Amino acid sequence: MKNIVERLLQGDRRALARMVTLIENELPQAHAFLAELHQHSGQAQIIGVTGSPGAGKSTLVTRMVRELRKQDHKVGIIAVDPTSPFSGGAILGDRIRMMELAGDPNVFIRSMASRGHLGGLSTATRDVVRAMDAAGYNPIIIETVGTGQAEVEIMRTAQTVLVTMAPGMGDDIQAIKAGILEIADIFVVSKADKPGADQTAAELTMLLSLDPNRRQSAWRIPVIKTSALKEQGISELITALHKHYAYLKESGQINQRAQRQLHSEIQNLIMQAVAKKLQDQIDPQEWDALIAEVTARKRDPYSVASTLGTRIGLDSTL
Amino acid sequence: MKNIVERLLQGDRRALARMVTLIENELPQAHAFLAELHQHSGQAQIIGVTGSPGAGKSTLVTRMVRELRKQDHKVGIIAVDPTSPFSGGAILGDRIRMMELAGDPNVFIRSMASRGHLGGLSTATRDVVRAMDAAGYNPIIIETVGTGQAEVEIMRTAQTVLVTMAPGMGDDIQAIKAGILEIADIFVVSKADKPGADQTAAELTMLLSLDPNRRQSAWRIPVIKTSALKEQGISELITALHKHYAYLKESGQINQRAQRQLHSEIQNLIMQAVAKKLQDQIDPQEWDALIAEVTARKRDPYSVASTLGTRIGLDSTL
Repeated sequence: MKNIVERLLQGDRRALARMVTLIENELPQAHAFLAELHQHSGQAQIIGVTGSPGAGKSTLVTRMVRELRKQDHKVGIIAVDPTSPFSGGAILGDRIRMMELAGDPNVFIRSMASRGHLGGLSTATRDVVRAMDAAGYNPIIIETVGTGQAEVEIMRTAQTVLVTMAPGMGDDIQAIKAGILEIADIFVVSKADKPGADQTAAELTMLLSLDPNRRQSAWRIPVIKTSALKEQGISELITALHKHYAYLKESGQINQRAQRQLHSEIQNLIMQAVAKKLQDQIDPQEWDALIAEVTARKRDPYSVASTLGTRIGLDSTL
Repeated sequence: MKNIVERLLQGDRRALARMVTLIENELPQAHAFLAELHQHSGQAQIIGVTGSPGAGKSTLVTRMVRELRKQDHKVGIIAVDPTSPFSGGAILGDRIRMMELAGDPNVFIRSMASRGHLGGLSTATRDVVRAMDAAGYNPIIIETVGTGQAEVEIMRTAQTVLVTMAPGMGDDIQAIKAGILEIADIFVVSKADKPGADQTAAELTMLLSLDPNRRQSAWRIPVIKTSALKEQGISELITALHKHYAYLKESGQINQRAQRQLHSEIQNLIMQAVAKKLQDQIDPQEWDALIAEVTARKRDPYSVASTLGTRIGLDSTL
């Protein structure tokens, strides 16, 4: 019987699904498998899709995938929800729209929520991308809910970041504040059949023209209007995605982005290992006793951190 | 000449300002000073104020502080902007509204942005709270821009979390998604003179009544309408803040919250130390060489993380 890595490399969907579960549950063998899969990854274009709730992301992704399937691409989709850190609950209801894609054997969809990932959701997302990439999916689309810092972090995993906005949502100014403008490679104004779409597109184009960093770049960010109702803009969008990938390769930026991402991934892996050591080696009673000393002002948090650091094997004082 | 800690404890504003700068610049001596200050902290009520951009947070904080000053409180304000992780730029323009408070010797205001805090902005915020607390400021108000996960993390530093919404901004549903509903202790519907305020307040009250966790709690979250124009709702809000603090003390929750916060603070301090070790001990050339091996598929990120972990003194394999 072949092992999971061999089966996954041959495109076996069940092996891929099992690997994603190993990643999500942070089982120790996942890293050994992923180290092997890494040798076979690096082929897929990784596309991030983000935007505020209500911007029509799920509809857009569904229509993009339909178009990519016409061009015979095998498409991976990761729907990530980093919200609700306290309950860990993910609101994936509107992903139901994507269900129509689930029957296609050349489309692989997985949802991920934030529940207790020691290394952060972005590390887990990157691992799932690696597995889908090795399994031959290309492109891989990462869709996030919302536009906060967690989403920005996840979008760093992508090579091409697509930001969607609906007309008249007042999103534009919020988007700038959330750092989304800075990571966008392509803008989509969705629901272009609604009033205000032209104005939103014009405002975005103007904002982009004012950004000094953007003016220096050879990549001109396109602002594309799409409408599910009028079946408009999707093939233009897919063309822009292909163009951006070609630009990344020609300019050498694809390597620069990969290097930046690996740097942050490796750091995250080290942090994850430290968090795991803390979890495994310091039991809850000891935590409680130490914290009681700190709340009683007998000790301070800095010395406790130093003590625990030594306990998990950090070789010198913090 | 007295040292900075002694002067700070006597309420010297310049000593406090200097300490905040030490914290922001992550200078090594900051931890030694903060360990001393910890013994003198724990007196202040820590109030978090959050809500989407445009919800009127700065105006609200300004009016809260004016009211607290009438009651002779010495107030600390920390305005935190965790957005724009890439440029590190903080948009603090609308904090200009708070400038009218800056002349008061019993009000201490500091802005903080996310630029390169190894241990995260929430750790730095907590340290600044500790310093202000030891300097005799009470209450201390932490105001954040936006409602993303970073803001939720920062709000964990607070004992009482106040969430503001403006009528008709469509914030309500977004807020639920962002986990804000789960951390709120008091809701404020600002701009209550505008149409839709009653409806927004009614919707919030209904949402709260549906939340099973909330129904079990002895604290009934008040929904307070405020209007700067009509000078309405602020004394009611201040009363609610006092009541919530009394509730936290009586129920013992103040200790539970402090313990949870210390747990996460100590973990963050350890992570910060690991990040610093990586920065100090692995030079950029070595990073580049290792990452080049990974992009060439000669190595994988997991084994590189393990190698670097050993290098910085983590005693066993990751």
